Amino acid sequence: MKNIIYLLAICFLVPSIAYSQKPEETEVWTPEPKLITPGINPQAPPSDAIVLLDGKDLSNWSDLKQNPAQWTLENGVMTVAKGKGDIKTKQGFGSCQLHVEWRSPAEVSGSGQNRGNSGIFLMGRYEVQVLDNFNNRTYSNGQAGSIYKQHIPLVNACKPPGEWQTYDIIFTAPKFGEDGSLLSAARVTVIQNGVLVQNNVELKGETVYIGQPKYTKHGEKEALVLQDHGCLVSYRNIWVREL
Amino acid sequence: MKNIIYLLAICFLVPSIAYSQKPEETEVWTPEPKLITPGINPQAPPSDAIVLLDGKDLSNWSDLKQNPAQWTLENGVMTVAKGKGDIKTKQGFGSCQLHVEWRSPAEVSGSGQNRGNSGIFLMGRYEVQVLDNFNNRTYSNGQAGSIYKQHIPLVNACKPPGEWQTYDIIFTAPKFGEDGSLLSAARVTVIQNGVLVQNNVELKGETVYIGQPKYTKHGEKEALVLQDHGCLVSYRNIWVREL
Amino acid sequence: MKNIIYLLAICFLVPSIAYSQKPEETEVWTPEPKLITPGINPQAPPSDAIVLLDGKDLSNWSDLKQNPAQWTLENGVMTVAKGKGDIKTKQGFGSCQLHVEWRSPAEVSGSGQNRGNSGIFLMGRYEVQVLDNFNNRTYSNGQAGSIYKQHIPLVNACKPPGEWQTYDIIFTAPKFGEDGSLLSAARVTVIQNGVLVQNNVELKGETVYIGQPKYTKHGEKEALVLQDHGCLVSYRNIWVREL
Amino acid sequence: MKNIIYLLAICFLVPSIAYSQKPEETEVWTPEPKLITPGINPQAPPSDAIVLLDGKDLSNWSDLKQNPAQWTLENGVMTVAKGKGDIKTKQGFGSCQLHVEWRSPAEVSGSGQNRGNSGIFLMGRYEVQVLDNFNNRTYSNGQAGSIYKQHIPLVNACKPPGEWQTYDIIFTAPKFGEDGSLLSAARVTVIQNGVLVQNNVELKGETVYIGQPKYTKHGEKEALVLQDHGCLVSYRNIWVREL
Repeated sequence: MKNIIYLLAICFLVPSIAYSQKPEETEVWTPEPKLITPGINPQAPPSDAIVLLDGKDLSNWSDLKQNPAQWTLENGVMTVAKGKGDIKTKQGFGSCQLHVEWRSPAEVSGSGQNRGNSGIFLMGRYEVQVLDNFNNRTYSNGQAGSIYKQHIPLVNACKPPGEWQTYDIIFTAPKFGEDGSLLSAARVTVIQNGVLVQNNVELKGETVYIGQPKYTKHGEKEALVLQDHGCLVSYRNIWVREL
Repeated sequence: MKNIIYLLAICFLVPSIAYSQKPEETEVWTPEPKLITPGINPQAPPSDAIVLLDGKDLSNWSDLKQNPAQWTLENGVMTVAKGKGDIKTKQGFGSCQLHVEWRSPAEVSGSGQNRGNSGIFLMGRYEVQVLDNFNNRTYSNGQAGSIYKQHIPLVNACKPPGEWQTYDIIFTAPKFGEDGSLLSAARVTVIQNGVLVQNNVELKGETVYIGQPKYTKHGEKEALVLQDHGCLVSYRNIWVREL
Repeated sequence: MKNIIYLLAICFLVPSIAYSQKPEETEVWTPEPKLITPGINPQAPPSDAIVLLDGKDLSNWSDLKQNPAQWTLENGVMTVAKGKGDIKTKQGFGSCQLHVEWRSPAEVSGSGQNRGNSGIFLMGRYEVQVLDNFNNRTYSNGQAGSIYKQHIPLVNACKPPGEWQTYDIIFTAPKFGEDGSLLSAARVTVIQNGVLVQNNVELKGETVYIGQPKYTKHGEKEALVLQDHGCLVSYRNIWVREL
Repeated sequence: MKNIIYLLAICFLVPSIAYSQKPEETEVWTPEPKLITPGINPQAPPSDAIVLLDGKDLSNWSDLKQNPAQWTLENGVMTVAKGKGDIKTKQGFGSCQLHVEWRSPAEVSGSGQNRGNSGIFLMGRYEVQVLDNFNNRTYSNGQAGSIYKQHIPLVNACKPPGEWQTYDIIFTAPKFGEDGSLLSAARVTVIQNGVLVQNNVELKGETVYIGQPKYTKHGEKEALVLQDHGCLVSYRNIWVREL
């Protein structure tokens, strides 16, 4: 008899417990995501972006000594001016989404690392390589789309020299303790010309040409740097969203 | 005495090793990333993409019972057909980059979850929400760009009803042990209309409407499912790259 | 005798002149066409365009009484505000190339001429019709892409309500004599969403709702007018190049 | 007396006729323009276009002797193969709207007419010039966007070598009498990279390198020809709509 009552209990109570779970219990209403307006197309800056280069002037950039940036600006396109050195944003950024369009020189010269070389240094330290790797072999961890000398791109998604290419970069800044110790490493996702080439890879430290990368504590926001590597690489339509 | 010699060796040799480091030592030449051709623009399928919907037919899709997909196809646009149920790809996918364009009905009807609701179920289980959230409030973890009931989108980047929107999704499939235990959780990045809304978030398990998500072992490749939620949501230009 | 020599000259020299024709003779070196920089894509304003609407303000527009334009501007989109009347450019234009993007309301209401109706009046007089003709029949010479009540569009190239559409218009202004007589009629080419709908058609006069169009002398440059027809039609990315 | 009655008739009847005019009287309901579906963007082929080059094969093309076209096809891009000669469409066209994307070689060589030279011959006879005129002067009626040796382009809207450029061409075929006499000349509108460069200009005859152009009767539909001028000019995304 008890067993029958027990069975009845199972038949009636257990389902009622299940039924008592309600969809509303797993709804989360706060915070409400901020409303933004995306661009006319996915390459155009959304409403919450800081436009760093719109082709009208170089007012958001300086050279590394805080003097006005000396790269050329012609027909809305900014181009490395040989011997003028790297340039950097006046504003600093930490974690961010960054859109950059770049073009390696149509007129090919040099080979390997000497063809269409430039670079995007997040926080002035962590380089996403810019290079003309269309029919131009170099070391895999130094080609376009690589995190220079740290991460090989998943594929080679380069367009030919002279064509515009896009980088959509998602950067998570590293975190440091008060004592300078690394709390969490930087991470980067890179989409080149619509193709994933880096998927949230963990950076090993600051980009170095020689030796092993390591982290050194720096500010929470640091200037974005574009490299003058002696090649006439061009840029346009650069915008960033702080994350 | 030996210790002193040892110390001297450290003092003199280690630095000299450091100085002898050469840039070539940190070059990695293999593997060489596969060469692919990006699309005409970042929204067009690159050469290594599997085109799932090009507007000509629904041949890559079936309903959940393996019968031909019954959604409508008109003017190159695929639209949910009420009562015809979810559809799924004939091919299965694991980790992938997925491009989807969708449009909620221009004619607004309903509110909250009843307005322009559909969904993209990665591996048939993990939902990126599709919803018309333009001037339409719902719970934050259930709005467009959310990982349904798991992750609130970073911002609301919705376009108005009737306009086409893009999702660029980077999905890392979960891994399971032989015994069904979870070895690594699924991860998702979502870019909506060019704006980051999910940054490599970790999924808590399969999407559930009621209760808490949990993982259940499944195959390494599973069909992508698009949801019929009773709203006439449309799709076009869907392509996927296996990672 | 002289005549004979003259005839001989014709017989021998003329052919030899013909044979001696050189490619250089048909080269024309002046004028040298002005150098301009096209936009990033064919929809973006080239360097010699006057941008009339970039989404930031309505400073280039007024109402018909020279008061500030009262249409709404939200998220970079300008929309007809019912009862606020037509708006016009502060600057006048004659022959020109005009790019306009427009969107009829996603929420469909009304039918025939009462659905998504607005209009682009070149020189304030010659109307390229704006109307939602997606599944909405009206008289052929009054539908989208028509020169209102003068020229039927070659095809119906409308997008659904709620989607952005483009008009690329080439307008040749009419010419009048000092006495007001018509020296040459206005001509218009219209490309809607990339599809030719009017091919250099000759206008019969100013657009009229009732009766037959006729020309009345006006200035060489006249304001461009956008019509408030009581429908919430939206506009963005309007630019013009003077020809 | 009669005159007075006549005058009264004018005074009373004419206005009443004018007042009796109704808007419906100037509505034209037939023909109803054919419904077509525009492409995803204005550069993509609409539903009624014949796609001549989609990057998958050269099946719509032959050389001038009807043998398979020998130009190279790589990564979806068709390029002139030196010495292989002109190619032409297998199908003939008369009046049409034509979309062509072309790229002059990134690696600049030669000058004047010897830099990035090719051409689009409508009906195999009427040439829209293709040339790299970025920082490369030649005779004005022979530069990119010209109707070769007949019409100077309105502006120089060239992009740099290595970048893709668009031509949107509207061509009205000439008409001939049975006796071969010209009934109406050919006319052409050309939009280069979104910028008008030819506005419905009248052609003087077939394109000739030496001497004056003249018309010779030909078929109502004739193959479109692309020129091999010894430069490695590339093409992609070519489509045509018959008018």
